[in-house]
Amino acid sequence: MIPDDSTASVIARVGVDAPLGVFDSGLGGLTVVRALRERLPSEDIIYLGDNARVPYGTRSPETIIRYALGCSKELAGRGVKAIVVACNTVSAVALDRLRAELDLPVTGVIIPGARAATRAAGEAPVGVLGTLGTITSGAYTRAVASFSSRTEVLGQAAPLLVALAEEGWTEGDVPRLVVRQYLASFFGPEVVEGFGLPRESRVGCVVLGCTHFPLFRDLIEREVRDIGGRGIPVVDSARETANDVEAFLTSRGMRAERRQPGSLQLLVTDKPRSFEAVASRFLGADVPAVELVDLKPE
Amino acid sequence: MIPDDSTASVIARVGVDAPLGVFDSGLGGLTVVRALRERLPSEDIIYLGDNARVPYGTRSPETIIRYALGCSKELAGRGVKAIVVACNTVSAVALDRLRAELDLPVTGVIIPGARAATRAAGEAPVGVLGTLGTITSGAYTRAVASFSSRTEVLGQAAPLLVALAEEGWTEGDVPRLVVRQYLASFFGPEVVEGFGLPRESRVGCVVLGCTHFPLFRDLIEREVRDIGGRGIPVVDSARETANDVEAFLTSRGMRAERRQPGSLQLLVTDKPRSFEAVASRFLGADVPAVELVDLKPE
Repeated sequence: MIPDDSTASVIARVGVDAPLGVFDSGLGGLTVVRALRERLPSEDIIYLGDNARVPYGTRSPETIIRYALGCSKELAGRGVKAIVVACNTVSAVALDRLRAELDLPVTGVIIPGARAATRAAGEAPVGVLGTLGTITSGAYTRAVASFSSRTEVLGQAAPLLVALAEEGWTEGDVPRLVVRQYLASFFGPEVVEGFGLPRESRVGCVVLGCTHFPLFRDLIEREVRDIGGRGIPVVDSARETANDVEAFLTSRGMRAERRQPGSLQLLVTDKPRSFEAVASRFLGADVPAVELVDLKPE
Repeated sequence: MIPDDSTASVIARVGVDAPLGVFDSGLGGLTVVRALRERLPSEDIIYLGDNARVPYGTRSPETIIRYALGCSKELAGRGVKAIVVACNTVSAVALDRLRAELDLPVTGVIIPGARAATRAAGEAPVGVLGTLGTITSGAYTRAVASFSSRTEVLGQAAPLLVALAEEGWTEGDVPRLVVRQYLASFFGPEVVEGFGLPRESRVGCVVLGCTHFPLFRDLIEREVRDIGGRGIPVVDSARETANDVEAFLTSRGMRAERRQPGSLQLLVTDKPRSFEAVASRFLGADVPAVELVDLKPE
């Protein structure tokens, strides 16, 4: 999460009861917040969704870094003790710069998912579902290679799942058919056409490589089991990230000491009402009032 | 298309054989180019897709106007004789400003579609399928009201159709189920649930109010007929816009005089190769080499 050991100065500055800062270009990162709250129920969390500038995926690396610095500094200014980059695009290009410029631990969502996937896949390839930007960036391929040079990565861009998640169509025939179609590239076409059992399982696990996709976790697990056979795990990057954050905070003595449930503050850079209307689907809980913030220009 | 009669100066400046300029924030406007080429095969066309800044729909009106001026000036600088704004978002907020600042005829895609829809709907409401931005902007409601104060407009945001069009999933079960679900708000739930014939047709026509949707025209026509009954027309804004442009050019003596097929030049502000890869689906024809341009900052 942070290479050097500067956490003592962070504890001295803000204290262990300071909130975790989480940001994303929009809504998706709320699935990471959900996982963090399940794993670390006593932690306060401040979430920033930079929805005025969504999507980040189509921007240049320089622009993404500039936006990510803006979000991180806003959170740092609010006294967070660590920053969780709940966005695959930012995690792929900006982590090193954020760590260099902020005196805070910073983690992303790709490394935790890639580590768990490499472990889960055994000798087989890792299948990654992500946005077109994430897949074409090769970020998971590089991350998996950092854990095992022998593990192949098969990427499948699944942009319709983003659109379905934002529409709230997470159950029923449409998402089922869409998931089935996307999984076809991992398991071969015979199965999808309905001509019997799979000849072979091409991947050893399937990674939910986009923060929107935990909304389809049950469905994807069911479909992976149906068409790929039992025993192929689905790796949820959001959950793996929460596991990593817990392990990090624990090892550095940075867990909140309070016992009551942590608070959640939601900030957005545009349209707080629209954000409120769809956020609960991602958060899996009631949504507190959403606050509009104006990021300082870099 | 243009309120005053300044077309004589345009003809004197660039000549009737000058190209038409068409722009959009991305790919969708190519369906308007397709309709223009069917209707006006001798016209040269320059198309500009500002895909570096797509989507426009989430930006403020000031930003949209700034971007639209940038695109229009780029086309004006290339000597076009008229500008077709092949983008619903820009058509809704920027036409007046473009007309004020450019010495060129300028038309959008909303008025032609709204005019045809008002005529087609008779006494019944007009149903509009569009992006969330177009529907919530009320642009079609205002445009229809300018033709008939008695005609009601029912809007249905259909964002999944944009995602499906860009994925190339325009046939099969998924788009059919998605279209059926979206049309439900126009025709009542009984039909969609499959319990027999419609009780009543709530709308008198369905407008394809997004430049991506002509890719689903056959499918939408079939579904409208199946669940809404015969005789409910589907109005294609792209085609109506082409009809309007033809009528305008003819009435002003601005039709190209040459007889051979017109040329097509495609410009984008980002990723020409990705654009090329999916453009033929929207254009309905082979795609010429796509050129990258850098818009002058405003």
